[in-house]
Order: sequence, then structure tokens, then C-alpha cells
Amino acid sequence: MGNKWIIRGGKFAVPGSDKPVIDGYMVIDNDLITYIGEEPPVLEEDIPSFDGSRLLFLPGLVNTHGHAAMSLLRGYGDDLALQVWLQEKMWPMEGKFTGDDVYWGTALSVLEMLKGGTTTFLDMYDHMDRVAEVAEASGIRAVLMRGVIGLCPAEVQDQKLAEAVAFAKEWHGKASGRITAMISPHSPYTCPPDYIEKFVQAAHDLDLPIHTHMSETRREVEQNVTDYGLRPVAHLEKLGMFTRPSLVAHGVHLTDEEIETLARHQVGVAHNPGSNLKLASGVARVPELLKAGVTVSLGTDGPASNNNLDMFEEMRLAALIHKGVSGDPTAVPAAEALLMGTEYGAKSVFLNQVGRLAPGMKADFIAIDIDQPHLLPHTDLISHAVYSASAKDVEHVWVDGKQVVQHGKCLTLDEEEIRRKAQEAFEDLLKR
Amino acid sequence: MGNKWIIRGGKFAVPGSDKPVIDGYMVIDNDLITYIGEEPPVLEEDIPSFDGSRLLFLPGLVNTHGHAAMSLLRGYGDDLALQVWLQEKMWPMEGKFTGDDVYWGTALSVLEMLKGGTTTFLDMYDHMDRVAEVAEASGIRAVLMRGVIGLCPAEVQDQKLAEAVAFAKEWHGKASGRITAMISPHSPYTCPPDYIEKFVQAAHDLDLPIHTHMSETRREVEQNVTDYGLRPVAHLEKLGMFTRPSLVAHGVHLTDEEIETLARHQVGVAHNPGSNLKLASGVARVPELLKAGVTVSLGTDGPASNNNLDMFEEMRLAALIHKGVSGDPTAVPAAEALLMGTEYGAKSVFLNQVGRLAPGMKADFIAIDIDQPHLLPHTDLISHAVYSASAKDVEHVWVDGKQVVQHGKCLTLDEEEIRRKAQEAFEDLLKR
Repeated sequence: MGNKWIIRGGKFAVPGSDKPVIDGYMVIDNDLITYIGEEPPVLEEDIPSFDGSRLLFLPGLVNTHGHAAMSLLRGYGDDLALQVWLQEKMWPMEGKFTGDDVYWGTALSVLEMLKGGTTTFLDMYDHMDRVAEVAEASGIRAVLMRGVIGLCPAEVQDQKLAEAVAFAKEWHGKASGRITAMISPHSPYTCPPDYIEKFVQAAHDLDLPIHTHMSETRREVEQNVTDYGLRPVAHLEKLGMFTRPSLVAHGVHLTDEEIETLARHQVGVAHNPGSNLKLASGVARVPELLKAGVTVSLGTDGPASNNNLDMFEEMRLAALIHKGVSGDPTAVPAAEALLMGTEYGAKSVFLNQVGRLAPGMKADFIAIDIDQPHLLPHTDLISHAVYSASAKDVEHVWVDGKQVVQHGKCLTLDEEEIRRKAQEAFEDLLKR
Repeated sequence: MGNKWIIRGGKFAVPGSDKPVIDGYMVIDNDLITYIGEEPPVLEEDIPSFDGSRLLFLPGLVNTHGHAAMSLLRGYGDDLALQVWLQEKMWPMEGKFTGDDVYWGTALSVLEMLKGGTTTFLDMYDHMDRVAEVAEASGIRAVLMRGVIGLCPAEVQDQKLAEAVAFAKEWHGKASGRITAMISPHSPYTCPPDYIEKFVQAAHDLDLPIHTHMSETRREVEQNVTDYGLRPVAHLEKLGMFTRPSLVAHGVHLTDEEIETLARHQVGVAHNPGSNLKLASGVARVPELLKAGVTVSLGTDGPASNNNLDMFEEMRLAALIHKGVSGDPTAVPAAEALLMGTEYGAKSVFLNQVGRLAPGMKADFIAIDIDQPHLLPHTDLISHAVYSASAKDVEHVWVDGKQVVQHGKCLTLDEEEIRRKAQEAFEDLLKR
């Protein structure tokens, strides 16, 4: 019984190891990888075989920060000053989002992510039950949380917190464990200190990690100092956030001391290079963060500030911009960028069985077609995955041992319906 | 007689105009666009019709700086200090390149470029007859030149100059005008002043424009000051280069005064954002160049320092990095990035009938499939082309009115043979 099979003749990426590309075999038993190596495994039974030639297998990509439903606003307001973009474009439209809008926007994004090789995504938004529905149906692995903005009366605050807690209780561990939950006050600038403390307490009570936006713009850092006399890292430390396992998004504007504090508390940083550049937030100090031992992972942020969910592009941006800005061509080498998009990503969202091709790990992996002009000659496949490939090179995707994308087609979602519904949802939002 | 046809129901990108996307019709008569508009044209005869629905038509992309044959070294040495990369990796291998290596490396690159929507490329390399052969056979439009390094004895210098002149004489205007030539001393740091003056004279004699590398790294600028007492712009101005129509590649390290000088002489700048970041050369002052009225176009540079030839990625990088580095989210908006990749590119390589969808222009255009998750909803298609699309979204490509890519397949080149030969050429280089 069970579903055991073998990939033969494939190339398997193991970035960061002595031999970063294994030319050989991988065995999958239900949801787990049970063997990977250059020698054929000893098999006691006849099991189905998958031809791995022309393919490079990579761990599924892990997108550690985003707001998937915002795909409905992709291209609706670009090249604008941040406040104009938020106040005149995003917030008025998001204010009109119904649960159905969130459902179809998220479905559009999950479809894009799966087809592009992302097997795990973090999502912080509203109407999270609808997001969880998409995650469950699509087969993707998801780390979900109600992101709460606390600029509202106390009773509304309490209600939102209760919603966030109820969502986490209901969905944590669901979908055969593919869905996990976190607790998420939106940011220090949208949640008063005492409100953040309530989230920290809730995270303790539920034994869940915390995610928040932090130090994305210079202006918000300055405002934090004005309002609370502390920069965001010290502020959140004081509020007890880092007594919980934590992941902060952005961390663009950090001092050396703040980097040390994050490292000491083992706080992960979700780096969003595309979004940070597009919104002109700045360039995060990624080489310094990595050097200090901080786990830096990669996120796309919402599709309206990116404007796609191609994690290959985020890996490439991470590998490119820190070289160009620091003047050091050895900064963030290809293998490290690939680790940021896979293993470090999994670690950042507290999934210790995901992000690496190794026996005992969950069978979340993807295959890209390497017999294409832009991926030849086969000099260094780790380099090609980071510097030359894109989401559209993904041929097959498996999550939890189940194939969800085959020859570029999503097997779990109705692509045509989602495309049509997402377009209709946007047109309807314009009218409302 | 003739080959006249019409595209119906398409969307046509006209960046920079009041109505940047025309929803309607385009008529092509042999090598020319003869009509574009929202109303159906008055046709005197029955002509073949092409269904443009689900497609966004764009001018073909123009890659204004590169060394196509270096695709053979893609991924062969990354994340290294510039001098190590050049001296230990690139130069020893390039020194072994035969005409056949250049042929197959160029073929691999032209295949990648055509499939990715690039309809014109500039190439500066050696064995240029072989590059021209590929250009002629593939149907691509090409601006070709022997790039000459002058760090050699006088008689070798003379021979190389003679080669560059002979190539230009033989190939300028060939392949039904698809191939044009330029004159190209490699750079101020690889060509002594008197040698550069000979190239300027040759360009005058042949009535051809000039292309050179300039101010790519801080170090080369400082060396120029040490050697000649002038920064590179003043140095080249003094040598008379800018009395010819000129295009310089990179222009990363420029003072305000240098930018003014380039603008005054109408010198174009080929901006290579991917390569400049990867080699840690720095970030060119593109917003200032554009503001000063300099024509800034986009190049991939060689595939070994990029590491692909996806011009959508270069447009996106141009639109993203200058926002992030300057802190101004309105810097290099999407339409301007698209102009840099098309119309400004054509202007930079002195092709005045290319780069725009308009009556009287050459029929060099591409179609991308916009009915895909990452290109929905259809909010702003110019934004989607720049911020969300990639080379792999290109469905069809026409150059000079002839279709060269259909449903993603190149019609003019033997892809399978090129892939195999390029891989073999690299393996053979390792052995030699």
C-alpha cells in the first residue's frame, strides 16, 4: 500500500552542500522524501519510475511575506508616491473587498505561485477563512494569519483580535498539516503598544509564532522614535514580541545594534527586494544581516507592489542588488540566494521538514526544464536557477508528495474559471 | 502581389502617447506597418486576417549592448571579484574561441533573444563574419561591429582596425538592410588615444556611428584620470569621438558635467542594469540622464555577466532599481522603461524606422499572451509588460514583416541542433 515512486536520471539541487547538484535518484514515499543519491537505491519492491532527464529538481520555493488577494489590484496604481498609492488607490479599493473578492484574488495568486514553483506561501490579510479555503483546495502549503490593523476603537480592536485567534485555532494544522497559523499585529505603526502586547499574549496562549511588518520605510522608523522614544526593534523587544518565535517583514532600515538584537533573539527577516525597490523604500542590509547570523528569507509582498509572484525573480534580485549597491561582487552568491528562497524560507516560517531535498523531509519539490537556450550550457545549475531561470521554466510541482502542476498546468485548480472570476471581480470593484 | 495582412481585435502598446494601449487593428504590408487604429481600416482588397485576441502587441525589444557569443560561458564563474572573473575565467576561455564557437554561442543567444521578444540586437565581438551569418539566417535585425582591444603592437593594431573596417564595409546594409554596422574601439582603457582617433577617422570615412564601453567601473574612471588627466567623457570628447553619432555602453560613473556633455553631443547611453549589478559596478544615474535629455536605452551585456538575455527583465530592473536607490517611487515609470527597451533603443542604434508601432515603421513587433494569471486583471497593460511579464510570455515575433517565432517556437533556426552544439562547444573549450 501507499504511494512510493522513484525519479531516475534527474539532477537534484542541494545548495550549500559540498556537492550542490546530485546527478541521480530520489525516492518519494507518500508525503516524504526517503532517498536521494547518485547510486541507485536498494528497492524491495517494484515501484513506478519517473524520467528525470532534462530536469533540475529544486526544493519548492517558500514565499515568506505577502497579501495574495491584492492580485486584484495588480497594475492599479504604479509609479506613485507611497502615500498617494495607499490613500488614493489601495485603501479605497481594499475597503470594498468582500470575502469573494479575497477568494478569487487569492486563487489567482495561488495559481500563479504553484505554476511558478512556490510550494509554501505566507499570507497576512483579512477574510482569512476564504484564503484557507483556497489553500486547502489547491494543495499548496500555507502559513496563514489574520493581519490586524489596530487604529480603531477598543471594542473593534477586541473583535479583530478575537477573529485572529479564532482563525488560528480553527485552521492551525488543517489540510493534513499543510496549513499552519501565526499571530499577526500588522505593524508597530498601525497597532498601539498595549494592543501589540495582547497579540504577544495570544501567541503565548496558542503557542504560535508572530509575524509583523517592521522598519519598511525611513519615515515609519522616525515616527516610531517620535511616538515611543524607541526605534522599532527596541520597541517590539520591549513589548515582548521576541519572546515568541518571530518573523518580521522588510527590515529595510536597521542599525548595527538592531541587527544584533534580531540575531540574539533569532528573529527572521522576510526580505522583499522587488517591493522595497518598487515602493522606493530602500535596500535592506542583507549582507550584514546574513553575516550577523539572521535567517533572511524572501517574500514577494502583495502583487500590487511587485507586480508578480515569481520567486525566481526575488532570488535573482537578492543576488543582484546587494552586489550593485555594496560594490562587492561576492555578496549574496547564487547558492545563498537559493537557500534564502528555500531552506531559510522554511525555517523562517517554522516548518522544519520543508525547504531541502533530503531523506525525512516533506516531498515539496519542483522541476525546471533545463534544456532551453537560456539555461545552456550546463556549467553551473545552481547559478542558472538563480541568475537565468524564471517562474515560467517550472515544468512540474509536488507538494506533500502530491503532484499539483504537470507540464506547466495546475492539476488542482480550474485556471480558466479563476482567470475569468478575477477579471470580473476587478471590474466589479471599479463599479461599486 | 505582396504580402499584406491585418491583425484584428488586438491590443497594441504605444507607450508615451495619450492612449498608450490601442484596442483595434494593425495592417502590415510586406516589411511595413501601414495602419494602426481603433477603427477598422478601409481595405480595397480581401487580405488575410490574424486573430489578435488575448494578445498584447508591443514593438520588438531592442538590446543595445552585448556580446552574444559569451553565452558559451554563462554560469562559468559567478560571484567573483571582477579581476578574478576576467583574468581567471573569461579571458582564458575567450582566448580559445574559434569562429565556430562564436557561431554556436551567437546562435544560442539569438535563439534566446528571438524567443524572448528581442527583434534587434547590438553585438560587439570578434569573428564578426560568423555573427553576421547567424543574424542573416535567423531573421533578426542586427547592429554589428568588430570590438577592438588595442593593447598590442602597432602592426596588430593596424590589422585589427583593417578587419573592423572590412567587416563594416562588407556587411553594412546587408540582409535586406537588417544588418547595419558601427565602428567600435573597445574602450578608453583598452585603446590608446591615437588608436581611438583612427577609429573616429574610419567612422567619418565610412559615415558610420561609433560604439564603445565607457565609465563602467569607478576604477577605470580613476585610471583614465591618472593616465590622461581627464575623466572618460572629456577624454573621448577631446579625441573627437562625439563628432560622430555615438552610443556608449554603461556610463555608470558620471558627474553632472559629464551628463551635460553627453546630452550636448546627443550621445546615447546603453544602460545595462543586470550586468552592472552582478559585476558590482554600481548603479547608473539614469533618472538624471533622462532628465538631461540623454537617450537611455537598455542592454543585457554578455550572457556571462547577466545571466540571461531577457529584455523584459532589463526593463523591469531599470524601472525598479532607480526607484529603490533614489528613494523616489515615481522615478523611471513603466512607460518610460518600455520606451527605453523599444523606441529609445532603436534611436540609440540609429534605426529611425524601428521601435514604435506606427504607420511607416518597419514591422518589427511581438505579441505576448496576456490571458495568464500573472498578467491579470487587465488594469494597465503597459505596467504588466514592464512589471509582470517575462521573455517566456512571448507568443509570436515578427521582424521586417516576417514571422520568426510562432507559439513560442523559432521558425528560422534549428533549436535542437543549436542547443546540442552550444553544449558541445563548451565541453570542448574545457578540454582545449
